[in-house]
Amino acid sequence: MNCGRLSVSLEENGYDILIADGLLDGIGDLAGRLRSDGSTVAVVTDDNVWREHGERLSASMSRADVVFEPIILSPGEENKSIQGLASLYDEFARLALTRGSLAVAFGGGVVGDLCGFAAATWMRGIRYIQVPTTLLAQIDSSVGGKTAVNIPRGKNLAGAFHQPSLVVIDPVTLETLPPREMRSGMAEAVKYGAIRGAPLFDLTASPLEPCLSDVIYECCRVKCEIVSADELDRGERMLLNFGHTFGHAIERESNFGKYRHGEAVAFGMTLAADIGERLGLTSPGVADALRRALASRGIQAEYPGSAEDLLPALAADKKSVGGGVRMVLLRNIGTAFIRSMSFSEISLALESAAVR
Amino acid sequence: MNCGRLSVSLEENGYDILIADGLLDGIGDLAGRLRSDGSTVAVVTDDNVWREHGERLSASMSRADVVFEPIILSPGEENKSIQGLASLYDEFARLALTRGSLAVAFGGGVVGDLCGFAAATWMRGIRYIQVPTTLLAQIDSSVGGKTAVNIPRGKNLAGAFHQPSLVVIDPVTLETLPPREMRSGMAEAVKYGAIRGAPLFDLTASPLEPCLSDVIYECCRVKCEIVSADELDRGERMLLNFGHTFGHAIERESNFGKYRHGEAVAFGMTLAADIGERLGLTSPGVADALRRALASRGIQAEYPGSAEDLLPALAADKKSVGGGVRMVLLRNIGTAFIRSMSFSEISLALESAAVR
Repeated sequence: MNCGRLSVSLEENGYDILIADGLLDGIGDLAGRLRSDGSTVAVVTDDNVWREHGERLSASMSRADVVFEPIILSPGEENKSIQGLASLYDEFARLALTRGSLAVAFGGGVVGDLCGFAAATWMRGIRYIQVPTTLLAQIDSSVGGKTAVNIPRGKNLAGAFHQPSLVVIDPVTLETLPPREMRSGMAEAVKYGAIRGAPLFDLTASPLEPCLSDVIYECCRVKCEIVSADELDRGERMLLNFGHTFGHAIERESNFGKYRHGEAVAFGMTLAADIGERLGLTSPGVADALRRALASRGIQAEYPGSAEDLLPALAADKKSVGGGVRMVLLRNIGTAFIRSMSFSEISLALESAAVR
Repeated sequence: MNCGRLSVSLEENGYDILIADGLLDGIGDLAGRLRSDGSTVAVVTDDNVWREHGERLSASMSRADVVFEPIILSPGEENKSIQGLASLYDEFARLALTRGSLAVAFGGGVVGDLCGFAAATWMRGIRYIQVPTTLLAQIDSSVGGKTAVNIPRGKNLAGAFHQPSLVVIDPVTLETLPPREMRSGMAEAVKYGAIRGAPLFDLTASPLEPCLSDVIYECCRVKCEIVSADELDRGERMLLNFGHTFGHAIERESNFGKYRHGEAVAFGMTLAADIGERLGLTSPGVADALRRALASRGIQAEYPGSAEDLLPALAADKKSVGGGVRMVLLRNIGTAFIRSMSFSEISLALESAAVR
């Protein structure tokens, strides 16, 4: 399977996710159909993405007679800031974007989150297309309508729900992605299988290299299902946070520099599975299955630091409440659930997991 | 009539507007009922409002055992900026606001728009109450869920639709409002009567001072009706822009310093009525009726500058399209409609109105 179409079904503003090798070459046609006036299409991207893939996008826009202008950011999470947002507004004003204009987020998660938030708030909301170019963005951040910027006091604290009008995924763009970024994305793919799709889990756990398009399609299918049921993150969507409670704490603890997001999530999944097994909430063997899957994809499973030391960072989490957190645990591979846990309960489980 | 309750009916997130003398003394109870956890309530306000009315709000919060903290801005439109928004996010973080927290916008339009936008985007949206303390905010900006900040290239270009959970209007707070601010608000009241409510128009046109609570109630009733039918400003809501096409141009032309918003809208209404009559689209006598109503409330009706000179500023409007604008015209007092007009058509009508 090399291509597919999935739909996010929402009460309003449902949208399609298109997945196919070479799809970037058709972006001009797709963009042309989605703008509702003749104004310039704003393509938000970064230096790296533009150097690698800008020519294909430009050629496609030209073929479709779509006037566009690239807004090229420096790469890096530090641009996902209020200042970055203000610059984007200035560019939107310079290009005279109207309420009927279209923006295109062409890049990884930083570009998608920032461009999405600007689109959510420019003249109180314009349409945008997600064209993710990293594995992590293709299977995770580009689907679901979460947009955000970081503020000095925390990541993603300012943001909006704003569904894209279309998600265009071309796996060919991953050919130039550094191996470490691929592994980071693949850790999230393991997560999708762990929480919802046992067949997907087997795919990611295979000793052979799985077909990338298949992995992307299956991950997006799971995400579509969950997002369609819970657009505004009030319930089921929380299952997507498996591995993220500890994952975020690890990222925060290391100042967001040492580990890629997916690497931290991998550590977080293993820790959550260990805790679940220790408390008898997770079937025996699940943690080992996770470790094997991660190892098959070349992803480190064990957090090298002390999990106990992460507790203060856990308490600072956006999702922490009072003296504990709501954690996602696995029943089995393919079945996840949410459980409120106090910090002392987590601490005890970590201790006994360590001496196991 | 000194008090009332109106409802904005929306598919989701409908809310009440409470209007009563002395209602500010009950804000603590209302806030206590609306927050969904015990976190601190953030009260966003400005120096002037806090000096005049802070004590009443504080006492009410104390009586209801609601822990709150005021975030006191400098007064003035220049704080409705991206920088102002960033500061507000920092304060929200300092107060550890959660997804279940509540913000209170306690002040005029600047405070309401800025606090509303921060609430719309803090952790992708928290609840907020509007407690407007100017006539303009009580009858206009606090109802309808439009939130925004200015950017260097234009006013209100960044924003979101985010409905308040409640609007609490205490006409007593207007007792300390400077007369010029009262007149500016009253110009918008004349507008509501002109577009939708002939009885309201008669009230505002009366040679006697009308009962303020009645005016506020009737204006809010009209706004509720229109907003309920068109939450996202895609149609009927545009009628609220009567007088605003020229009004915004006048504000822009004079760099937002010389005239209050309502003063510019008064000029804009007279110009729009003149143009409508000249083109045979507005019944004869409507412009004079408007002039009389404005005069009864001590509001200047004639723009002292040249209306012709406003055309370039018209073209820069957020709502301008191609070579023209969609203007709101009156059929009669109480009936408004939208008409697309080219700049040359407007220019011609202005010329002949001038030589009339």
